[in-house]
Amino acid sequence: MTVVCPGCGNRDELNPVRWRCSCGGLFDLEDHDAGLTLASNDRHGMWRYAGMLHPATHDLDWQALTLGEGMTPLVSLETHPTGARVLGKLEYVMPTLSFKDRGAVMLVAAARRLGVRRMVADSSGNAGTAIAAYAARAGIPLEVYVPTATSAKKTVQMRVHGAVVHWVDGNRAAAADAAIGAVERSGAFYASHVYNPLFVEGVKTFAFELVEQLHGKAPDLLVLPVGNGTLVLGTYRGFRQLQRSGLVDDIPPILAVQARRCAPIAAAFAADAAHVAAVAPETTMAEGIAIAAPPRGAEILAVVRASNGRVVTAPEEAILPAQARLAARGLFVEPTAAATYAGLSDWLNGPGATWITAHSHRTGRPPLIVLPLCGAGLKAT
Amino acid sequence: MTVVCPGCGNRDELNPVRWRCSCGGLFDLEDHDAGLTLASNDRHGMWRYAGMLHPATHDLDWQALTLGEGMTPLVSLETHPTGARVLGKLEYVMPTLSFKDRGAVMLVAAARRLGVRRMVADSSGNAGTAIAAYAARAGIPLEVYVPTATSAKKTVQMRVHGAVVHWVDGNRAAAADAAIGAVERSGAFYASHVYNPLFVEGVKTFAFELVEQLHGKAPDLLVLPVGNGTLVLGTYRGFRQLQRSGLVDDIPPILAVQARRCAPIAAAFAADAAHVAAVAPETTMAEGIAIAAPPRGAEILAVVRASNGRVVTAPEEAILPAQARLAARGLFVEPTAAATYAGLSDWLNGPGATWITAHSHRTGRPPLIVLPLCGAGLKAT
Repeated sequence: MTVVCPGCGNRDELNPVRWRCSCGGLFDLEDHDAGLTLASNDRHGMWRYAGMLHPATHDLDWQALTLGEGMTPLVSLETHPTGARVLGKLEYVMPTLSFKDRGAVMLVAAARRLGVRRMVADSSGNAGTAIAAYAARAGIPLEVYVPTATSAKKTVQMRVHGAVVHWVDGNRAAAADAAIGAVERSGAFYASHVYNPLFVEGVKTFAFELVEQLHGKAPDLLVLPVGNGTLVLGTYRGFRQLQRSGLVDDIPPILAVQARRCAPIAAAFAADAAHVAAVAPETTMAEGIAIAAPPRGAEILAVVRASNGRVVTAPEEAILPAQARLAARGLFVEPTAAATYAGLSDWLNGPGATWITAHSHRTGRPPLIVLPLCGAGLKAT
Repeated sequence: MTVVCPGCGNRDELNPVRWRCSCGGLFDLEDHDAGLTLASNDRHGMWRYAGMLHPATHDLDWQALTLGEGMTPLVSLETHPTGARVLGKLEYVMPTLSFKDRGAVMLVAAARRLGVRRMVADSSGNAGTAIAAYAARAGIPLEVYVPTATSAKKTVQMRVHGAVVHWVDGNRAAAADAAIGAVERSGAFYASHVYNPLFVEGVKTFAFELVEQLHGKAPDLLVLPVGNGTLVLGTYRGFRQLQRSGLVDDIPPILAVQARRCAPIAAAFAADAAHVAAVAPETTMAEGIAIAAPPRGAEILAVVRASNGRVVTAPEEAILPAQARLAARGLFVEPTAAATYAGLSDWLNGPGATWITAHSHRTGRPPLIVLPLCGAGLKAT
């Protein structure tokens, strides 16, 4: 499985202990142009698109690990006064109750293929939970480093699956540093949803499903939470592949949502910067996207710009009301997931209204907006 | 929507306030013979089978309420030393994290059709949670009566969706009595998953999905939890319909599992009784199936016998170890769900081994066993 470093151009074989390029860069899978491939109609989850994923994944034994993740529901959320329709994709209707299952199953399948005997991960909660479930299924021991503020319910989930949890004083970056230290000391496989490109490869299925559910169309706007950016990057790559294959005309603009209290990507976007500078975050209840120094920050900025999108923020005080509005529509999600909706609502009350009007004039119809709801309400305290 | 009372033969129109027959009996939908109908391939949840459901449901506006429930994953659990393969159907991968969504969406769609303005339900937890989510989506106020011992996480779920929760001293039957009292006093719609036959009609989709996932085959044994019996009754009716339509040859035997500490149906089955006598239950962590006097008890007994099945019990001390064994396979479920697996394991260590050997001799291959896992682990404390 060949990986490349976009920073220095180095090509390398993915191996159990080499988790980043010798230049310090983050690996990606080699670009690939998939031809027109049809979904497999006898499968009901994300693996109906197995043939559309990177060729390097085609010999992974996902069948041994799958919990049936994917093909999450797409349901109506609201019609905005401007006429814009908003649909929610229920990414919490998943085996471990978050969208992270899409990437975790792929990451662990790759680890199993590499003959990995032990793994280390770091997480604000949901990625660690997902990796713990699939690690248990694969029979690979796992240690997870989490910030002390992580929801107790998420660490309960990890430990139920047999993972050893280490609580790290400090923020999400401190947990990552502790995990990397453990990897360097022990030679364990770094099961990182940020560094390992297999994780994002699995997340691409979010885009494939969405287009199939919309009967071959892309939405007019995608509203995505962004912290470490796995969903933004995976979705963009999925749409780019669909576009190259002629399956959609355009990549939809991405409205990336950060928590206002921890918004380094939003700051960099507003400043027209190419790189993301670390911020000193305030505490936010959107724990899942509270990433003060995202390692793939430059890539996220590039992708949002390439999509003709933008980065906005969710006001802290709008998160719980957004959670309540969703619950009143039958959808109980964790605050991190509600923050995405809060960010959209805030934007629609400002520049978004202008964008919608312009879109409606240009196309003759109000836009279709899709946002994922990424984690179940019971995951948070 | 015509309902019939199997007890006295009375036919009646389902209406908002008549929740049982004047003879005291429980209503069913009229029997119907669906012809061979294909699933709708452009839908991914239970509504792909909308055309196979009772004609009385065909004009319900489920599109306004659906949260994409159904088409839950079917995954490998274990291969028994006898060669029997056990698959789990992950019924907790659902919008409210339990299988009850199948019935609740149908029940609330019917209430909406009837113009209901307020509803009352009783529940040990998951049914109330599911009804609360769809009631919120329908905009119908709901009050739920629960036993005081109900998991706090389930009542949190109900309240998040705006339901008013009443805690009732005593067991599940006391909660039902309190709800019925409120219905009689107020004229509210009784959103009962036990009395209202629409609920069980929705549960039939469990059988339809399973057969599609098994490529047109029925399993050799179905292991189902039984308390009030909605899953047993719905599954049996689904298979009966598939058999009548020529889509499967046989209805699989049902191994119904009760908690040993609250096992009135198992006692009646063992005594060859036609009716179920109430028991004085001990406390069990399998709260979801702790029903001391199931109103549809006689019907459940008849169905299990018609399937050539039996009723077994899960030892209390085997429930947590069963939960841990499932978690070690990547599946985190609540104790009630683990109890089904504990009951199967207990049976396989006794008479089940003989049954499997006989099956293998007769058919020339080891049996395929399917059990649902009905509620997510985070639902219990």
